[in-house]
Amino acid sequence: MTNIAICAPATPITRDHARALKELVAAEFPQHRVHFHEQCFMQAGHFAGDDLARLTAFVECANDPDFDVVWFAKGGYGSNRIAEAAMVRMNAAARAKTFVGFSDCGYLLAALYKAGVGQCVHGSMPVSARSERGREAVRRVMRWIGGDTSGVEPSLDGTTPAVAFNLITLAMVAGTPMMPDLSGHVVMVEEVSEHLYAVDRLFFHLAGTLPRIAGLRLGAITDVPENYVEFGQSPEEIARYWCDRAGIRYLGRAEIGHTPANRVVPFGLASPPSGS
Amino acid sequence: MTNIAICAPATPITRDHARALKELVAAEFPQHRVHFHEQCFMQAGHFAGDDLARLTAFVECANDPDFDVVWFAKGGYGSNRIAEAAMVRMNAAARAKTFVGFSDCGYLLAALYKAGVGQCVHGSMPVSARSERGREAVRRVMRWIGGDTSGVEPSLDGTTPAVAFNLITLAMVAGTPMMPDLSGHVVMVEEVSEHLYAVDRLFFHLAGTLPRIAGLRLGAITDVPENYVEFGQSPEEIARYWCDRAGIRYLGRAEIGHTPANRVVPFGLASPPSGS
Repeated sequence: MTNIAICAPATPITRDHARALKELVAAEFPQHRVHFHEQCFMQAGHFAGDDLARLTAFVECANDPDFDVVWFAKGGYGSNRIAEAAMVRMNAAARAKTFVGFSDCGYLLAALYKAGVGQCVHGSMPVSARSERGREAVRRVMRWIGGDTSGVEPSLDGTTPAVAFNLITLAMVAGTPMMPDLSGHVVMVEEVSEHLYAVDRLFFHLAGTLPRIAGLRLGAITDVPENYVEFGQSPEEIARYWCDRAGIRYLGRAEIGHTPANRVVPFGLASPPSGS
Repeated sequence: MTNIAICAPATPITRDHARALKELVAAEFPQHRVHFHEQCFMQAGHFAGDDLARLTAFVECANDPDFDVVWFAKGGYGSNRIAEAAMVRMNAAARAKTFVGFSDCGYLLAALYKAGVGQCVHGSMPVSARSERGREAVRRVMRWIGGDTSGVEPSLDGTTPAVAFNLITLAMVAGTPMMPDLSGHVVMVEEVSEHLYAVDRLFFHLAGTLPRIAGLRLGAITDVPENYVEFGQSPEEIARYWCDRAGIRYLGRAEIGHTPANRVVPFGLASPPSGS
């Protein structure tokens, strides 16, 4: 049995989201148990409860030895506000844990990876369990937690450490005390709902701040809003342009992003957990 | 006579914009001459000509000893792409020059300030000369160039060095080789057309990357798009929150921004140029 705790470090989900995931787990993953922290359903302005509520819930889930996995319920925006304070509270149980999420929750993955706490995993989140296509992305995570690595990003070769981040999230972490050392890593980035000029601007920032990485892979750049003028370069041309300027190897595409095709990327050189 | 060269390191203006500024200068500032580089009217996708065209035009204007001032025509996005290459080409004439602009053109101001080239000035741009309200912001710059400091940001005290930046621009420069040393400076920031969660995210990044500054002033945060939920903090509350967390003194508001009230902020401890 794998016990999975779910909290919402950024924005809230509804009880319908929780019900959909519970039904999926009961029907298809009887070896897993999911426990939704009540904080998932709180609301304080933009956030799933105020900073202290989100911090407390995350620390409770991470530090409880009864849980094997902490799964972040949803991105949005806000996990950056609690990440630094959370790191100094992580106990031995947290260090043995697996943490799964992506998008805005990349702030926590970055901070955990930097602090060497647990196994960080880029993967889809419980919020996706309500739609038919989203469920397949959620299944991929559940299978990986159970030891089935079929949903892992296909370029992972087990010899070069990798990370996956939302582009803005990585750009905002870069240069802060939470930024992990990504030297020698393959860095995968994806983005959603940003203009291409903003994508270009984020690559400019990363080109000027990333350490000596092994290479960059471009995930999906989806829901690009229409602008008053065509940008003039495709997302892949933008990625190549900045990689060329920065002397970073461009390694091609990655199957990550805000899409149902979003694959699992265990940070570093992780093998899948054995389940239990 | 003050000779002002105008180029467009980011996005283009139209000949109507140029005509409007020329008429304003002829009618009210006969001691000034404005020269529009043809590059101002070029277009290549999002940009006012490709990187090489924008770089070449800027370097020509900056390095020409016949010009006293380089005035950036318009922001938008794109000056970051040419800033680093431009710095290594600056000659002695550029070092004696005044550079005026803001918004996206803050990338060039940052790079110039870091390189110690010329006098950098946050100020409104020629693109604003076509509207009645924008003209007053443009007049403020022209007066300052002529030695009339009435349009200078009122908190400038002549004893603490200051800079002014668009919030995204500063966040994207922070950590890159173009970032000037802002230790001991009052840093003023403004933003336009960004969600409050994005403003919060940018403050998170700056709180984690800014050096020991003298304090922060918040300019106008304008045209905030409506979101699906109220953010829950005002722009000033966001600025105070992150200043408190980072141990930065919050000094109050600054009269800068994407508004006709945008004031002139000479970088550092500059006195106005004498005119000639």
